Amino acid sequence: MLKDEIAKRSTIIEDEINRYLKPNEPGELYKAARHLISAGGKRLRPVLSLLSAEAIGEDVNRILPAAVAIEIIHNFTLIHDDIMDKDALRRGVPTVHVRWDEPTAILAGDTLFAKAFEILTECNVDAENVVRASRVLADVCVKICEGQYLDMSFERKSEISEKEYIDMIQKKTAVLIAASCSLPAILFGKDEKIVKTLWNFGLLSGTAFQIHDDVLDIIGGDKIGKDWCSDILEGKKTLIIINAKKRGVEIEIFGKGSAEEREKKNAVEKLISCGAIDYAKSMAYDYLKEAKSNLYTLEKTQARDLLEEIADYLISRDY
Amino acid sequence: MLKDEIAKRSTIIEDEINRYLKPNEPGELYKAARHLISAGGKRLRPVLSLLSAEAIGEDVNRILPAAVAIEIIHNFTLIHDDIMDKDALRRGVPTVHVRWDEPTAILAGDTLFAKAFEILTECNVDAENVVRASRVLADVCVKICEGQYLDMSFERKSEISEKEYIDMIQKKTAVLIAASCSLPAILFGKDEKIVKTLWNFGLLSGTAFQIHDDVLDIIGGDKIGKDWCSDILEGKKTLIIINAKKRGVEIEIFGKGSAEEREKKNAVEKLISCGAIDYAKSMAYDYLKEAKSNLYTLEKTQARDLLEEIADYLISRDY
Repeated sequence: MLKDEIAKRSTIIEDEINRYLKPNEPGELYKAARHLISAGGKRLRPVLSLLSAEAIGEDVNRILPAAVAIEIIHNFTLIHDDIMDKDALRRGVPTVHVRWDEPTAILAGDTLFAKAFEILTECNVDAENVVRASRVLADVCVKICEGQYLDMSFERKSEISEKEYIDMIQKKTAVLIAASCSLPAILFGKDEKIVKTLWNFGLLSGTAFQIHDDVLDIIGGDKIGKDWCSDILEGKKTLIIINAKKRGVEIEIFGKGSAEEREKKNAVEKLISCGAIDYAKSMAYDYLKEAKSNLYTLEKTQARDLLEEIADYLISRDY
Repeated sequence: MLKDEIAKRSTIIEDEINRYLKPNEPGELYKAARHLISAGGKRLRPVLSLLSAEAIGEDVNRILPAAVAIEIIHNFTLIHDDIMDKDALRRGVPTVHVRWDEPTAILAGDTLFAKAFEILTECNVDAENVVRASRVLADVCVKICEGQYLDMSFERKSEISEKEYIDMIQKKTAVLIAASCSLPAILFGKDEKIVKTLWNFGLLSGTAFQIHDDVLDIIGGDKIGKDWCSDILEGKKTLIIINAKKRGVEIEIFGKGSAEEREKKNAVEKLISCGAIDYAKSMAYDYLKEAKSNLYTLEKTQARDLLEEIADYLISRDY
């Protein structure tokens, strides 16, 4: 059911992306810009935008450009992040800087960034609200840059607090989900209270989503589409690692780059038995609960139920 | 006189840049983002915006954020271009990716890009016009990416026509100057004819500016702040090289990376005597003349005179 409802909306998004992001000259630049977005992805963010518009009783067609702009921004950040993190694969295809080269990947990302702000102006609502939405989306992009910078700098810092970690993932991941949920309310000129409600729903769900992602890296098994324990091997200071450290548990393979299966298994068992995994899971659950409590201030509709179901899915998915 | 008039306006811009681009957390990211813009620059583009606003009889204070946004966009493109072109120095200081590293430079550029669109929304004019300006500026940013891509790809192509070269420099350099001149008219809701007039003035002056820049590389001597004949040694297919080739003149040091003084001198003499330098100079002059003819459709004011003087300066400067 949820799957069908998501599919129905992501099909609309797919068509709009193709309409707004046509092949153009220079051909290779546009191929590079469209490469990752064409390779798929769940279109989670634009679907949240459509559902948010429905949940406030408005016509989704008038804000489709905003939903597309958000998905394009998401893809721009992935292209640039992959360069910075030196990742070679994403969505089962070579990343843009690997398939082409770094200069092309930088430009492909920049092109998408610019396109997103161009497309946003196509929303069929009052100009004042488009200006507000543009300001919020631009500010969200600044925060995403800050979050990515913090994420990289944490690898060089010895001590990261739980608070610093939450601040980082909220900037890097959650604010764009918050924008996905609240931009429709801004575009339709809704009360600040409703805007805030949807922002908080997205921000807190997005935080839960990222914590769950970190948990999956450790106990997700084969389905996650990347190597088991890769965050641990890369030395990422996730909530789980921070909590284990607080409990005096040392993970030998942390930041080692590679490890034997037996060593990884040992690390995972340690993280489970010390309670760090359960701690992270309960944190994700708490953020989700708080996210949903925001939602309940909106009138009960099918769209609101679907937003709730998606939020539940975000921390129950096993890949 | 011209210098004083420019200085008067660039001081205003300087204050506004500092107001909108405050140091923030993470400190190093913002230091990197402000590095190049703090190192100076002529502030040519925002000064053109202020003069354009004056030339149409409007209050510059209401569109100062747009002028700042354009200067920030310019600096964002320089930071990313320097990574792509592997340039180590600009404005007498190490480039961002050299002073910090590539990931920080990518993020510093992205942060400026986002900031520019945020700042643009602060213009004190009708929201409809802010939306139009945002659309135009975003489209200009797309074109700048296309231009930079073309510039890089020309190095791998054997034959570049004059038309392709002009198209490339217009996208890479001239459209942002066109935006600098026309955005004020858009923001004040002026007739499409006035917008077009100022756009064309900027586009054609910007084209002349870039051709003159290519000439300076060859006959500019020591003042240009970079190595003599660096474009030739790097294998850049400028108008001069394209024209020399058409005349059957071969430049031995083209694309060779380095050369002896005597070889460079020989190349320059060849380019002068075959007429390729004069050809480029006359093309720059023709673009300038056409640029200025657009200006003459505006009422004669001090601001219009200054716009004309700046345009003249663009192709007479010797550094």
